[in-house]
Amino acid sequence: MDIDTLNGLFKPKSVAVIGASSTVGKIGHTVVLNLTESKYEGNVYPINPKADEILGFKCYPTIQDVKKPIDLAIITIPAKFVSDTIDECGKAGVKGVAIITSGFAEVGLVDLEKEIVEKAHSYGMRVLGPNIVGILSNSDKFNGSFAPFLPFNGKGSLVSQSGALLIGIDAATYMRGIGFDKLISIGNMSDVNFADTIEFLDNDPNTSCISLYIEGFKDGRRVIDVSRKAKKPIVALKSGVSAHGAAAAASHTGSLAGAAKVYKSAFAQAGIIQAEDLDNLFDRTLALSLQPPLKNDNVLIITNGGGVGVLGTDAAEKYGIPLKFAPEDVQEELKKHMPEFGSAKNPVDLTGMAGNEWYFETVNFSISHKWVQGLVVLYCETAMTDPMGIAQAIKEAVVKSGIKDKPVAVSFVGGERSEKAMHWLVENGIPAYQAPDIALNAMAALREYAIIRESANDEPFTYAKADKKLAMEVINKARSENRNALTEIEAKEIFSAYGMPVTKVKLSTSEEEAVKFAEEIGFPVVMKIVSPDILHKSDAGGVKVNITDEKGVREAYKEIMKNAKAYKADANIHGIVIQEMAPWGTEVILGSVNDPTFGPTLMFGLGGIFVEVMKDVTFKVAPFSAKQAESMLTEIKAAPILAGTRGEKPRDRKMLANTICLYANMIVDLKDEISESDANPVLVYEEGSGLKVADARIILKKK
Amino acid sequence: MDIDTLNGLFKPKSVAVIGASSTVGKIGHTVVLNLTESKYEGNVYPINPKADEILGFKCYPTIQDVKKPIDLAIITIPAKFVSDTIDECGKAGVKGVAIITSGFAEVGLVDLEKEIVEKAHSYGMRVLGPNIVGILSNSDKFNGSFAPFLPFNGKGSLVSQSGALLIGIDAATYMRGIGFDKLISIGNMSDVNFADTIEFLDNDPNTSCISLYIEGFKDGRRVIDVSRKAKKPIVALKSGVSAHGAAAAASHTGSLAGAAKVYKSAFAQAGIIQAEDLDNLFDRTLALSLQPPLKNDNVLIITNGGGVGVLGTDAAEKYGIPLKFAPEDVQEELKKHMPEFGSAKNPVDLTGMAGNEWYFETVNFSISHKWVQGLVVLYCETAMTDPMGIAQAIKEAVVKSGIKDKPVAVSFVGGERSEKAMHWLVENGIPAYQAPDIALNAMAALREYAIIRESANDEPFTYAKADKKLAMEVINKARSENRNALTEIEAKEIFSAYGMPVTKVKLSTSEEEAVKFAEEIGFPVVMKIVSPDILHKSDAGGVKVNITDEKGVREAYKEIMKNAKAYKADANIHGIVIQEMAPWGTEVILGSVNDPTFGPTLMFGLGGIFVEVMKDVTFKVAPFSAKQAESMLTEIKAAPILAGTRGEKPRDRKMLANTICLYANMIVDLKDEISESDANPVLVYEEGSGLKVADARIILKKK
Repeated sequence: MDIDTLNGLFKPKSVAVIGASSTVGKIGHTVVLNLTESKYEGNVYPINPKADEILGFKCYPTIQDVKKPIDLAIITIPAKFVSDTIDECGKAGVKGVAIITSGFAEVGLVDLEKEIVEKAHSYGMRVLGPNIVGILSNSDKFNGSFAPFLPFNGKGSLVSQSGALLIGIDAATYMRGIGFDKLISIGNMSDVNFADTIEFLDNDPNTSCISLYIEGFKDGRRVIDVSRKAKKPIVALKSGVSAHGAAAAASHTGSLAGAAKVYKSAFAQAGIIQAEDLDNLFDRTLALSLQPPLKNDNVLIITNGGGVGVLGTDAAEKYGIPLKFAPEDVQEELKKHMPEFGSAKNPVDLTGMAGNEWYFETVNFSISHKWVQGLVVLYCETAMTDPMGIAQAIKEAVVKSGIKDKPVAVSFVGGERSEKAMHWLVENGIPAYQAPDIALNAMAALREYAIIRESANDEPFTYAKADKKLAMEVINKARSENRNALTEIEAKEIFSAYGMPVTKVKLSTSEEEAVKFAEEIGFPVVMKIVSPDILHKSDAGGVKVNITDEKGVREAYKEIMKNAKAYKADANIHGIVIQEMAPWGTEVILGSVNDPTFGPTLMFGLGGIFVEVMKDVTFKVAPFSAKQAESMLTEIKAAPILAGTRGEKPRDRKMLANTICLYANMIVDLKDEISESDANPVLVYEEGSGLKVADARIILKKK
Repeated sequence: MDIDTLNGLFKPKSVAVIGASSTVGKIGHTVVLNLTESKYEGNVYPINPKADEILGFKCYPTIQDVKKPIDLAIITIPAKFVSDTIDECGKAGVKGVAIITSGFAEVGLVDLEKEIVEKAHSYGMRVLGPNIVGILSNSDKFNGSFAPFLPFNGKGSLVSQSGALLIGIDAATYMRGIGFDKLISIGNMSDVNFADTIEFLDNDPNTSCISLYIEGFKDGRRVIDVSRKAKKPIVALKSGVSAHGAAAAASHTGSLAGAAKVYKSAFAQAGIIQAEDLDNLFDRTLALSLQPPLKNDNVLIITNGGGVGVLGTDAAEKYGIPLKFAPEDVQEELKKHMPEFGSAKNPVDLTGMAGNEWYFETVNFSISHKWVQGLVVLYCETAMTDPMGIAQAIKEAVVKSGIKDKPVAVSFVGGERSEKAMHWLVENGIPAYQAPDIALNAMAALREYAIIRESANDEPFTYAKADKKLAMEVINKARSENRNALTEIEAKEIFSAYGMPVTKVKLSTSEEEAVKFAEEIGFPVVMKIVSPDILHKSDAGGVKVNITDEKGVREAYKEIMKNAKAYKADANIHGIVIQEMAPWGTEVILGSVNDPTFGPTLMFGLGGIFVEVMKDVTFKVAPFSAKQAESMLTEIKAAPILAGTRGEKPRDRKMLANTICLYANMIVDLKDEISESDANPVLVYEEGSGLKVADARIILKKK
């Protein structure tokens, strides 16, 4: 990433507005007006051949007439003139262009958009947009957009793929009292995309949390790689997660919306925290921008009302941080600051009698205690207490403790006085919310951040001994025969080349060969007809199992051939496969797709009804770390089966996780070749006894 | 229900405040002050032997000195004096007492609370509380509480089991612009409980939606029965749904919190709509109090921004009303009111160019069209449009259409102007929310209400031919032998008496008897040792299956006896059971518990891993209707297995639903006898081939 160029784009020292206008209401006018109203301190150069001056700024006929350094050109002229303007910007030495103009890829003009980007790159410029609202930055006093004002000030920065939503959110920040430093409209992402903005904001000293509204990534894998390395929390609202919603998003911005499940996995791998909805994006951004991660599970709730306490407790469990009772010594100390009918358990119920002092004492003690790792303070407005006093007591107690690495979140349920107190808390660095469950959800986001960052930093697994040369030989042979579907034997050769244990299998073309192969493989064996004309082998009497000796092989060979011919007299028969008969094991399925957004992606689930009826599967975008492979085993609901249920011994999960790694390595290494694949079933044996890929399938990409 | 008494309690024409005080800050002062500040028009009689006058009202030494009709006595004196005061209230002819005073069952003084209620009832009085905030009613200008003011006015009424939360909510109504007509604090529910308040509010002309904050019911079954008959929507937030939360609730109000899953089922059976959290309770109450139910699934979304449109679409699917495209003719008409790059699909995207007129035309056309059954209108604030104008256009379009039976919900994403417009919409009967997903959630509540009311009105199933006499003989015999656990044979006799098909089973005590019974039952049979000393029958060699003839029975009899003696020489052997060997079928489990809140409750799930690993079960509180029994079959995730998967034929779901009905009838009819029971497995055969209860167990209640 060229940070200097991106700084020029997002934090420009000088701006040209191409299409600047004197006509009130025109976007070219609004942008210049907004630059003045936001008190932008850089140079502003309106470009318009028909005007001398706009809003007090000297106007230039073309950008080349400015003849001074220009960081950013904001383009508002009609789409058909944009391409020529890019040349002029390039010649003028502009660092970046932000194209507000719409009417490009989103209405089908993909080539025009491509041309513009290529041209810009030839001058070393980056392109934001087209089809954007613009860029807003509080710390730069810069409203380079047609949104009417800078957002309420805050420490997070938001990147939005929807322009209209960005304008709505801009105004909403004031009502919610949840602000942003920057709002960046990313539009069609012809060049600058989510990965670029993440990299930029991660280096921006005025951004402490990166907040994303996403309809669809263009290069999902790069977003994962960039996000994994980010030093700041990233929280994302992904829209278009419903089938119908994905269709709506596609017509909206022209980007492909990947399957919701893959996005979810990808976010987890990338260390991106997901937001459930718009409110949740605001609420989680607030917490992540103000508070440290929650390093472990010991959250203490302090409340003045049992009702909100219970609601907080429910929410804690719902959002994955179930409460525990604090140790006796903590309870003993807390009891000093409540009436006898209070409760020192968790939630700590100070009762409606709690005033500033009890809040101060309990917060100060709790946050300082080593058992407590995060604190949620709840308050229900009462006639007897003053919300602002409580808010100040909480803040003071935290400050006085000197503790800075434990998160605090607050909720006040009440009226105007409570709202004012909560605004004060937010201004003073403590996230505060109108309902207890939101405070717990915020705390959960801080917990997710701690967990997610841990695994996001693991290095991807690679298999040193992979025999890519062999794999490519098999693939090239199939390609030379104009086949995209590999045979089971071919697929297994490739799986085997990438270190996975497969059941042995050989294709015999005569009875003698069948006997020879069966003896090589070792009894018992399975025999199966191989014919492109016989798809349902069992129905055709083309499968025999548990063959234990030479005599059996000979009999089976004859009978299968006879059955096959009876089934279809002119069938093209390639031969009969002799296969190692693997003992029964727990059936699991591994499979891969080439996700249009994220590339090679692995699926894992238990076989049979678990996949077909319960849809109990999990995905990960490859490559990933060994630890993430292990986590796949526990992500499915049927996980206890692998751990051993109903008196059965645990399955060989270590070997299964290892095979998942090897599989992922294979689909990454061959990502230009493999379109889809699966290993189904994989038979997993008792702990220590490994597993076998019993059947395998690979479909090649069309070339 | 004595509506006159409850009217006296909740809408009193005259009120005595027992413990009225001149001291500012005392609850006895606050209540009198609040009555004056709320402009209460009835008579107020402060009772205090030490004062002549309080806040302008003549004071009386005792309530009996008033000598005028008194509807309600609000009691604020210390707990120890309350019992005597009840006598005085009774003698003064009071209709109801509201006991604000705390320090009763919630601190363990259960007997004192009970004494008070019994005493009150002896005078024909009802008791609200103790441990309450009081009663607030906008339509009666009545603030009979120590909460500082009446809530923001609205059409719903809220009953809260938490007093502190009620005070917080009271203030919050003003900030949210979501109001209530009444707030009722229900406290310890010593007498007046949720069922009573639901009955009262259902008859209250100023309440159009009944809103509940519940920690735990005291008589769950009655709440279900009363709610089923209610004419108004009921929406409930149940707290204490987490394991830890249930514990917190128990210490808070002394009521038992039933399992979250049972509550959820009970709400559905009762026709009560659930709220997820506090915000959701507000938001759903607003929609349900202002709009008609959504009678079917055709919801149309109109928007001026693709982003909020997609978020709305996602939310629709998430909350169970996935969007469909409107018919061509609807799309054709809508296209007239948008630019070419708009979209007439669903969501209908009018684009950022949409002003008042396009909103008016599209809303007016859509709501009038027969395909559209519900309308969600979204708006993202833009610099060019006026939120209030859009709001008025929406309202006018609905009014002009004359349509009143289709619900409308709105969301504006924006700042202060949008907020004002939304408040205006709410005042004018259209629910409006700050994010699109909330509007869709509100629409989903209106859909849930339509669905839930339909099934809530079905009559419970009863089995006319049940042989309770026979069942009681079996039960009484066991009781006479001091046994709570019935044997399999006894349990099956009872299941059979209630019409369920069980596998035949007989206890033989000799080889000859075994042969005789096997012939009666019909071959093949299963034989099993029966001994209280041999629990693991198979391990002891005490089970033989698939015995096909007399010879087999004789051999098995000898061998089982030999094995049993070898296993434990001095085992007390009751004999050997001869059992019909049912053919294999899909294994399902039916079971019952006696839920502490709701009474007899039935569980259903598929056998094996589905119950043990996947926890894939569903509950219903008995009795219930035949239709509700059918719905249990589709409520589990494994439902497709019953419908037939992987080439198998559908199972006999009709017979299974019927058996669920019969089972429910049995546990209701014997609710004083049966503590727990199960039928496990029940073998379910192909459609038309019925099912068999293969094993059964009944545990009696201790008497």
